[in-house]
Amino acid sequence: MKARVTVTLKTGVLDPQGKAIEGALRSLGITGIAGVRQGKFFEVEVDAADEAAAEATVKAACDRLLANTVVENYRVEIAR
Amino acid sequence: MKARVTVTLKTGVLDPQGKAIEGALRSLGITGIAGVRQGKFFEVEVDAADEAAAEATVKAACDRLLANTVVENYRVEIAR
Repeated sequence: MKARVTVTLKTGVLDPQGKAIEGALRSLGITGIAGVRQGKFFEVEVDAADEAAAEATVKAACDRLLANTVVENYRVEIAR
Repeated sequence: MKARVTVTLKTGVLDPQGKAIEGALRSLGITGIAGVRQGKFFEVEVDAADEAAAEATVKAACDRLLANTVVENYRVEIAR
């Protein structure tokens, strides 16, 4: 089973990398970008009997390693 | 308008970072993960008149800066 994990910074957490990207886009002449926030993305291949088991495994991986839940949120989508 | 951009490595491109994550999850005792591929994620706030214009701006940003299209694919979703 395939899972798609998106990790994003919580609202209010500063994102200097996103700000740098915004500045770089402006220097490249790309206008109309009002803000950029950078996150992480993982495609995880899970061996599990059903969707619920797959989601539990991936959530454990997020809590233990993929996301820092103090400053980051994560979202797990299981591909059917 | 908000856009969500996902940048992933093309099929066949080696992903040592994903392999390292796989190994780390195994060391943490999380079993059932058969593979991990790492990508990037961006939330982009766009000033545009309509969805098509927003998508064009974000695609230009991807082609010029956010993705290396030699080895990476990107996907743009415009939030309604």
